[in-house]
Amino acid sequence: MAEELRFPTGLGTSDADSISLLGQDLAADLMGKVGFGELAFWLVAGRRPSPGEVRLFEAVLVALADHGFTPTAIAARLTYLSAPDSLQGALAAGLLGGGSRFLGVTEDCGRYLADVLASASGDDFDAIALEAVRTTKAAGRFVPGLGHPVHKVQDPRTPVLIRIAQEEGFYGPHLRLFEAIGRVHEKVLNRKLPLNGAGVCGAALADLGLPVDLLRGFALLARAAGLLGQIAEEKRRPIANQIYLTVDRNAVYEP
Amino acid sequence: MAEELRFPTGLGTSDADSISLLGQDLAADLMGKVGFGELAFWLVAGRRPSPGEVRLFEAVLVALADHGFTPTAIAARLTYLSAPDSLQGALAAGLLGGGSRFLGVTEDCGRYLADVLASASGDDFDAIALEAVRTTKAAGRFVPGLGHPVHKVQDPRTPVLIRIAQEEGFYGPHLRLFEAIGRVHEKVLNRKLPLNGAGVCGAALADLGLPVDLLRGFALLARAAGLLGQIAEEKRRPIANQIYLTVDRNAVYEP
Amino acid sequence: MAEELRFPTGLGTSDADSISLLGQDLAADLMGKVGFGELAFWLVAGRRPSPGEVRLFEAVLVALADHGFTPTAIAARLTYLSAPDSLQGALAAGLLGGGSRFLGVTEDCGRYLADVLASASGDDFDAIALEAVRTTKAAGRFVPGLGHPVHKVQDPRTPVLIRIAQEEGFYGPHLRLFEAIGRVHEKVLNRKLPLNGAGVCGAALADLGLPVDLLRGFALLARAAGLLGQIAEEKRRPIANQIYLTVDRNAVYEP
Amino acid sequence: MAEELRFPTGLGTSDADSISLLGQDLAADLMGKVGFGELAFWLVAGRRPSPGEVRLFEAVLVALADHGFTPTAIAARLTYLSAPDSLQGALAAGLLGGGSRFLGVTEDCGRYLADVLASASGDDFDAIALEAVRTTKAAGRFVPGLGHPVHKVQDPRTPVLIRIAQEEGFYGPHLRLFEAIGRVHEKVLNRKLPLNGAGVCGAALADLGLPVDLLRGFALLARAAGLLGQIAEEKRRPIANQIYLTVDRNAVYEP
Repeated sequence: MAEELRFPTGLGTSDADSISLLGQDLAADLMGKVGFGELAFWLVAGRRPSPGEVRLFEAVLVALADHGFTPTAIAARLTYLSAPDSLQGALAAGLLGGGSRFLGVTEDCGRYLADVLASASGDDFDAIALEAVRTTKAAGRFVPGLGHPVHKVQDPRTPVLIRIAQEEGFYGPHLRLFEAIGRVHEKVLNRKLPLNGAGVCGAALADLGLPVDLLRGFALLARAAGLLGQIAEEKRRPIANQIYLTVDRNAVYEP
Repeated sequence: MAEELRFPTGLGTSDADSISLLGQDLAADLMGKVGFGELAFWLVAGRRPSPGEVRLFEAVLVALADHGFTPTAIAARLTYLSAPDSLQGALAAGLLGGGSRFLGVTEDCGRYLADVLASASGDDFDAIALEAVRTTKAAGRFVPGLGHPVHKVQDPRTPVLIRIAQEEGFYGPHLRLFEAIGRVHEKVLNRKLPLNGAGVCGAALADLGLPVDLLRGFALLARAAGLLGQIAEEKRRPIANQIYLTVDRNAVYEP
Repeated sequence: MAEELRFPTGLGTSDADSISLLGQDLAADLMGKVGFGELAFWLVAGRRPSPGEVRLFEAVLVALADHGFTPTAIAARLTYLSAPDSLQGALAAGLLGGGSRFLGVTEDCGRYLADVLASASGDDFDAIALEAVRTTKAAGRFVPGLGHPVHKVQDPRTPVLIRIAQEEGFYGPHLRLFEAIGRVHEKVLNRKLPLNGAGVCGAALADLGLPVDLLRGFALLARAAGLLGQIAEEKRRPIANQIYLTVDRNAVYEP
Repeated sequence: MAEELRFPTGLGTSDADSISLLGQDLAADLMGKVGFGELAFWLVAGRRPSPGEVRLFEAVLVALADHGFTPTAIAARLTYLSAPDSLQGALAAGLLGGGSRFLGVTEDCGRYLADVLASASGDDFDAIALEAVRTTKAAGRFVPGLGHPVHKVQDPRTPVLIRIAQEEGFYGPHLRLFEAIGRVHEKVLNRKLPLNGAGVCGAALADLGLPVDLLRGFALLARAAGLLGQIAEEKRRPIANQIYLTVDRNAVYEP
């Protein structure tokens, strides 16, 4: 069957003499002139970010890159132990834990805030926040990004991200709403919870205009750097075998 | 069984009030002050790079981020088509193609150059290069990073990377040797091949002192950004279903 | 810190002289005596299936193993092209497409039927089915497993699975309900749709008492065999490079 | 660009009324008539195995399915903890550990034996084995499949697999050679090592005529069943969070 095939793309194309990326000449216009975080933003958003946007965006990536011995870091190290010939497999195994529970809060929080804003009116953020927390509680659900298993009073990343957003002029409705939730939720939930830094990251990314359905992707990109750090450390000073033996030696048969 | 367990790490640790990464206070010292590429370098190398190192390093990441419709980009798009609920799965599927053939040249070239340098003496790079190409050919092997399927005369990334390395003072033995190979290989192979840009990236990363066994990891990190771009574009303007149908409709049964 | 660690398992344990699996002596009691499908059932369900259960279960696995050039098969082949040194990566890439759209219908259908049955009373399956289809339509949703993109009149797997379930005495409420949906949905939807074979597989697995939340796992196990077949064929008679070139050569830059 | 596209396959094809697999009518000829292990063999080898071949093949799969808390099982459980919404991700993460170290011995041993046989002459297996072990030792390498970290005297799977191969008439040159290695290696290595059961599996698969380069694939298929069992158990009786906390709580910062 003869067909007319046509696969449009605004990303990379090349011919014998040149490589084009995002409509730019990769070698002449991008390499050495555009930072890596800047390029990642541009690739996903389809527009070049301003320097202020880059600073906030990279602060988010830095905030999310590594949290020590998370389940994803341990999974990557164990996979590297089993298959040291396949670095890509160890990295992929670590990223596959980037789902709903440990790494999903960034996207979940950004989407929650965007959904609330989409159906809210006015600019009384405390009132909007109060209504949102009430509705969420009534539905038997949690507000994504509220609370943290370790940082029970304050997540140290939260005030820094908000300050950077303000400095760069990107303190927008998502961050405003999330801060308002931080102020008012106690009235509904009867306890004071901190704003999770990963949730604030989601709010900041949404205020940067990045697509809410892809926020998890930025958490994954950040974590890719952290996982490379974990794998590099595993290579220099291995612990995965000890983790494996700790589990295996304490296995107990129970039907 | 009671055990004394101890898992050392120089990466991330945290307690109720603070998060530490690489011995720094994440919120106070890193966020907003360290770029994402800079952090990735630091995480793997265990030392903070200088601004010049960051510029060369990020130029490499930008060079490797996306090459259009590579097999890995198509695999990521097809996986996103099949399982749009799992962005991490689509990203991981794309990265899993980062193996020996398409994405491996960066690491293979860096390691090849490092191996040659480890057993060479003197600083006559043309002589070292000539000997290396001869030995490699005699063993029935190819020099990794020599030649490119599309850029048959010159890979446009090559001169730009070398210029940036020179500008920043990191034009070291790996790049020198690779350029020497570019000059002398024709005498042995009887044809003139270009220096592959992905190979030059490997030489540059090696000259930055990054661990040769982990160079593939940087290509994967760069590609993670490119794959997010591919997935974002697939979301906005899908083509994976057309790719799938193009293959499926032209399936022919042959035992 | 000294801790008392204890990790219970009913699966595999071993010591210097023996290997135990599921409380059995692997070498003496399982190898050569238990089929592979039988073991897979046992591993997930925690109980040994009867011969009739095994026959129905393996018929389901056979039905789901391979559907030709699906997106997952193409993704596995492309990944094998890129990274032929990592068979596990190609297999994993293929399985990662086992999500909500292409491979999810087995689990989605089984769960849908189980949910309907959990809140239904009586044994008038046509009435239960009619109510379920009405409710689902009113909610703006589709009945999982109803309809098929290719088999628009009848999925050939459907009558065979139902017959095998009847022969083996496992034609239970999930299959009954699904068949009832097949009879009555036209009254609500105003068109006649076939029962998707992958959906019938989900109903059959649920009637076998397998955990509804893990039905996708059996589709993945079946597909693992199919993907190995695809990779083996790719090795013997490669097409992935042609697929890649078909896409890449028809790439068109569009911002 | 109009092209004539043609993608040949001997696996699955379908049209509106029928599904064909391996040239058979899937519904009429395979479902309920062919076992799952039998189909997996057929898919990879391109020929239907005899009942004796199926018995030996399934014994191998049963032998390799689960070994308790291996690094791959732990990685799958941790990934399921992090991303319970993506069963395919947890399974894929587990399989990605199927590389050179823990799961690779089946393929490595099969390939080693095939390589030795390819360059040997005569049928004095003890002599061939002695020469092979000598050559391997002289090259500073290990014989794959010789020795086991836990079963230091005898792997209980080994005699059972050899007996089944003999019973079914598939005790061929690979198993003969591996047994010969078991008899003679002490003369060269000066210590007595057991034949690893996973290595014997590789020899048996090679004697079944399966492609030596794809033996790892069968270990992965077997392990897919075991990993589903691990994930199902994790769902019923979770331990991954305790594993994670055991590591995280014993983290110690060391630059």
